[in-house]
Amino acid sequence: MNIHIINIGDELLIGQVVNTNASTMARLLTQAGMAVTHIVTVADESRAIEDAVTTSLAAADAVILTGGLGPTKDDITKTVLCRLFNSHLVENEDALNNVRRIFAARGYELTPINRQQAWVPECCTVLRNDLGTAPAMWFETADGKVLVSLPGVPFEMEWLMRNRVLPRLADHFGTDCILTKNIIVQGIGESFLSDLIEPWELALPKSLGVAYLPVAGMVKLRITARGSRTAANDLKSAMVDAVASLRSIAGQYIVGEDVETLPELVAQAFVSRHLTLATAESCTGGTIASVLTALPGTSAYFRGGVVAYSNDVKQCALGVDAKTLAEHGAVSEPTVRQMAEGARLRLCTDYAVATSGVAGPDGGTPEKPVGTVWTAIATPQGSITKLLHFGDRRQQNIDRTVNQVLADLVRTIAAQQI
Amino acid sequence: MNIHIINIGDELLIGQVVNTNASTMARLLTQAGMAVTHIVTVADESRAIEDAVTTSLAAADAVILTGGLGPTKDDITKTVLCRLFNSHLVENEDALNNVRRIFAARGYELTPINRQQAWVPECCTVLRNDLGTAPAMWFETADGKVLVSLPGVPFEMEWLMRNRVLPRLADHFGTDCILTKNIIVQGIGESFLSDLIEPWELALPKSLGVAYLPVAGMVKLRITARGSRTAANDLKSAMVDAVASLRSIAGQYIVGEDVETLPELVAQAFVSRHLTLATAESCTGGTIASVLTALPGTSAYFRGGVVAYSNDVKQCALGVDAKTLAEHGAVSEPTVRQMAEGARLRLCTDYAVATSGVAGPDGGTPEKPVGTVWTAIATPQGSITKLLHFGDRRQQNIDRTVNQVLADLVRTIAAQQI
Repeated sequence: MNIHIINIGDELLIGQVVNTNASTMARLLTQAGMAVTHIVTVADESRAIEDAVTTSLAAADAVILTGGLGPTKDDITKTVLCRLFNSHLVENEDALNNVRRIFAARGYELTPINRQQAWVPECCTVLRNDLGTAPAMWFETADGKVLVSLPGVPFEMEWLMRNRVLPRLADHFGTDCILTKNIIVQGIGESFLSDLIEPWELALPKSLGVAYLPVAGMVKLRITARGSRTAANDLKSAMVDAVASLRSIAGQYIVGEDVETLPELVAQAFVSRHLTLATAESCTGGTIASVLTALPGTSAYFRGGVVAYSNDVKQCALGVDAKTLAEHGAVSEPTVRQMAEGARLRLCTDYAVATSGVAGPDGGTPEKPVGTVWTAIATPQGSITKLLHFGDRRQQNIDRTVNQVLADLVRTIAAQQI
Repeated sequence: MNIHIINIGDELLIGQVVNTNASTMARLLTQAGMAVTHIVTVADESRAIEDAVTTSLAAADAVILTGGLGPTKDDITKTVLCRLFNSHLVENEDALNNVRRIFAARGYELTPINRQQAWVPECCTVLRNDLGTAPAMWFETADGKVLVSLPGVPFEMEWLMRNRVLPRLADHFGTDCILTKNIIVQGIGESFLSDLIEPWELALPKSLGVAYLPVAGMVKLRITARGSRTAANDLKSAMVDAVASLRSIAGQYIVGEDVETLPELVAQAFVSRHLTLATAESCTGGTIASVLTALPGTSAYFRGGVVAYSNDVKQCALGVDAKTLAEHGAVSEPTVRQMAEGARLRLCTDYAVATSGVAGPDGGTPEKPVGTVWTAIATPQGSITKLLHFGDRRQQNIDRTVNQVLADLVRTIAAQQI
């Protein structure tokens, strides 16, 4: 059983927006045991939509569209679907009541343009959108194929996928058993990791596959096991064995499992041990704090931090010694160590991390070229500092520093705390 | 002249990674006057790649592929292209020298797996990749169509697009004239904006089109003017007129033009007037500082900030009164005002912004449900506070708060400073 995703939107074709809908949908479908084989982006244009839908309905068992449903001028999906399914638009009472409900809750008056959203092709089943005015629409073809049309607004699409579409698709098609395992690897480049684990990969059973996602100094490995529902136990065993043998070869580089991101590993390390953390950031500019606090529940361990972007602020907010700054500069071992220790002391936490470097593209010198970054971790057992050398791309330097520091923090906690 | 983009990668189909390559390429091509009409994602699988390339070569003038070129097991693009172009792999000397150069610079030994990267289909032209070991490959068909194969690593792909591919495509095909204008609108919902500017949109000449991108409380409008090169001056005039008449209808909601993001508008406002800024963040957790510092040159106006995630830190780092916190709580007008004023004072800046709210999904109460956010701007002329009510989605609440605060900051500077 395979699925094609079609994302409609001129803004995607001109590159004004990144297609996060595609990855969200693909991830949810994959986790639910359904295989996505094709993702297409087309224009807000009748012919393009019609061609894409026709092609995909021929090749896939189910087609899921996003876009073209909303109160602006470029919404033509419904018209195309009427034509393709030989139907016509009718006002749907459930959809209309939903639109009314949402507008009333927001204290808005219902305008005609918004009322239009309750008009749907007569042959479809409306799947109510609890979060927005555009209804999701479910169509079935004579040969049992399914087409679902969803609004393009990301959080509405995701809610509809989880609450309306996935359960209905599972009922309609049944599903394979798919198991996935994420392994976060940090501290080794993609090609060297590949060489290192090549024997392991070649020895994997056919039911297991590995995808490599290198991102800013980390490699996320996703191991996927796929088989029929009856083979679920065998798949589980195969996965357990695969992970154990991977650890025996590459264990020193594995930071954690079963998470999508390093911040989740940090949260687990701190919350499970009732520890607290502060941050002191210069070149990373608040990004460490930002990625940690993106997760709910961070206040259980994270007390706060300082973004010490100027030397004055390093001194007055973190207590870095003026003499140290004068002698060694902001990007130096003593400065970053004092930043971390200052944060730990002043914010009263068990651990603190600090960064100070030359993110670029400007600011480099012969002694400290762009990409030179010092990091520090202040711990109950003293401070650990590290010098990193990255390239000259600003955002990459920031992201790689964040990932290095967080990975080192997780490793340090594991080494220091029982 | 139209282009199809094909992004190869299992990690895209399982939703492990967001397809930023597609949006980067689409944006660069559009800015260069070339129209992208189709973007497809397919698996790291011979048949899927072959079908996609064949279909696209029939429909487009140029096809640009990413992916399937790298030192891991799932790299099969070259083999497929050999088959499609009736060619065979040969070791390319320029490509090999490039691989050698990069490995020497990094102090690595050249392994056989990396040497493979210098093998390319004989019929292609190698476009040297200065940033990585995978070469870009340019193919031409008998009927003048072009296929380009690029590595999937985003910064390498972007460098190759800008420095190798776009100039070559422009030479090969010539280009239309395309003008684009970004307008950042904040403070009005997408459907209400649409109603407001409908007369304006309907009155636009045929050469102009408008795309709406709603994102976290803002709407980015992109106006695109397209025509032949000889009509360049007419297009420029049409664009100027369109923007002027848009301002006459919706000017109060327009925060700025000619930028992609609010942080750029903030930087312009501060740097042009030699002003300085500090941040004091609670619920936004460092995200304001992070988005500002993502831009190079932020140190020209941004001195730093505090992420005051716990009440203790609000007190000791920002000077918020313990009595205020006890009486009104962290999420209150007096607290957020004191946070902003404390940051302005202690970090010695002209302006400071502060946020304090309930990002969710937990932490809400009947008086202060999830989505309740207070913001403050401390200015030389006193403080301005605002109460916002968002929904219950954490990341959306954070992002909308960030955008609201930055838009209000730009407006405040414009109102207060000549």
